[in-house]
Amino acid sequence: MTGTVYLVGSGPGDPELLTVKARRLLDEADVVLHDKLPGPDILETIPEEKREDVGKRAGGERTPQSQINERLVELAREGKQVVRLKGGDPFVFGRGGEEMEFLADHEVPFEVVPGVTSPLAAPAVTGIPATHRDFVSSVTLVTGHEDPTKEEASVDWEALAATGGTLVVLMGVGKLPEYTRELREAGLSPETPVALVEKGTRPGQRVATGTLDTIVDVRDEAGIEPPAVTVIGEVASVRERVEAWLDA
Amino acid sequence: MTGTVYLVGSGPGDPELLTVKARRLLDEADVVLHDKLPGPDILETIPEEKREDVGKRAGGERTPQSQINERLVELAREGKQVVRLKGGDPFVFGRGGEEMEFLADHEVPFEVVPGVTSPLAAPAVTGIPATHRDFVSSVTLVTGHEDPTKEEASVDWEALAATGGTLVVLMGVGKLPEYTRELREAGLSPETPVALVEKGTRPGQRVATGTLDTIVDVRDEAGIEPPAVTVIGEVASVRERVEAWLDA
Repeated sequence: MTGTVYLVGSGPGDPELLTVKARRLLDEADVVLHDKLPGPDILETIPEEKREDVGKRAGGERTPQSQINERLVELAREGKQVVRLKGGDPFVFGRGGEEMEFLADHEVPFEVVPGVTSPLAAPAVTGIPATHRDFVSSVTLVTGHEDPTKEEASVDWEALAATGGTLVVLMGVGKLPEYTRELREAGLSPETPVALVEKGTRPGQRVATGTLDTIVDVRDEAGIEPPAVTVIGEVASVRERVEAWLDA
Repeated sequence: MTGTVYLVGSGPGDPELLTVKARRLLDEADVVLHDKLPGPDILETIPEEKREDVGKRAGGERTPQSQINERLVELAREGKQVVRLKGGDPFVFGRGGEEMEFLADHEVPFEVVPGVTSPLAAPAVTGIPATHRDFVSSVTLVTGHEDPTKEEASVDWEALAATGGTLVVLMGVGKLPEYTRELREAGLSPETPVALVEKGTRPGQRVATGTLDTIVDVRDEAGIEPPAVTVIGEVASVRERVEAWLDA
C-alpha cells in the first residue's frame, strides 16, 4: 500500500497561523520532510523522530530538488503518511508544483493543503492591507530572487508598474536597489509608499517604511535583513494611520 | 475597558482551513460579526448565541459598511471581545482595510488575523499552482466585480496581460466574456489555458478548464456559478497532468 504525500503550507511562521488541517496532519504523519523555511517555532512543535530536514546536506550545500522528489516517492512506497511541509503556501514560489508533478508521474497519491501566504500575511498583521477599495483593484506577488538558471524572460517591472495595483516582492531585500530603480524608470512616482516587513508574524518582527525614492536608505539604516517582503503602493501608507491601535 | 476587535480571515470555506488562531478566537469571542461569505460549514461551528449576521438587513438589502463599522465600535466599547469574521483573507478584496481604519479612528484596539486566501487556495486543492518555476515569476489577484461607485480607473487588463504572470480573477464568473475578450485584444494567446474553480474547498467543488477562447462556452455548458475563481495562465494546464493522483 502506497502512502499519501501531503504538500502542506506552514504559513508565515507563527505556529497559530498553521491551519487546523496542517496541525492535524503534522500530528498524524509518520514523517515530515522540511527545510528551514517554516521557522523554528513551528518545527519545534513536531516530534524530532518524525522530522527529516531536507534543507541542507552535509557540507552546507542545498539538497537538490530531484533528491527531495525521490525521497517523497520512496517514503510513500514504504507505506508512510508523509507531510512535505513548505514555508508559507506550497504553491506561491514554493516549488510545490514540481513536487506534485513528480508524485503524479510516479503514481503516488497526494493532497495539497494550502497555507496562509507570507506576502499577504506579513504586511496584514502590521496594518498593511494588500488591497484597499480606495486605491487598488489588484495585488501582484512577485519574486525578487529569480532562478538564475532559468531561460525565461526575467520579471517585467515595467508591466508590473503599469498594473496600478499593489506589488509585493518576496525575497526582495537584496535586489531592492535594482527593482525600485526599474519601477521609477517605468513611471511609478518616487513618492510611492513602500514598506519592508522583516520576520512578519515571527519573534523580532519589524517594519520600515519609506518611498520608492528613500527605501534603499531606509533599509540600510534599519538594517533590514531576509526574510522580508517589500510592499509597494498606496496601501503601504495605511499603517501609519492605524498603528497606534494595532495590538501585535 | 474597551474590548478588542479581531479582523479574522475564515479561509476558503473548509473549516479545517481555518487557522489555529482563528479557531481559538472564534471559541473565545463574546460576539462574532459575519456575513454569508465564510460559508455554512464554518458558521455552524460557532454557537448561535454568539453570532450576529451583518450580511443582509430585513428586506434583503445589504447592510451598509458604515453600519458594520459602527457596530464593531459599539460592541468593543461595551467591553466585548469581538471577532469580525471575513471570508478568505480580510485584506484581499475584503474591505478589512476600511474597518481597520474606522477602528483606529475611534480608538478601538484591534488585531488582524490573516486567513488562507481563496484565489490561491481554491486552485491549489484542485492541482493548479499559482506559480510554477517553469512558467511564471508572478501571480496577480484581481477583482472581476469592481465597485461601480468608485471613481478610480477600472482594471487595466492590458497591463495585466503584459505581466506574463498568472492572473486569478475573483468574483469573475459574470464578467468572464468581457475580460477574456480584453485579454485577447491585449495580445494574450487564445490558446492560453484557463480554469474555473467553483466552491473551492467546499462541498460541491467543481473545476472546468478550457482556453481563453473557449472558456465562456465551457462555463455555460458546465453551468459554473459563483462563488468561483478564474485562473488564467500556463499553470491552469498542470491539473490535467496530475489529477489522476490527486486525493480530494
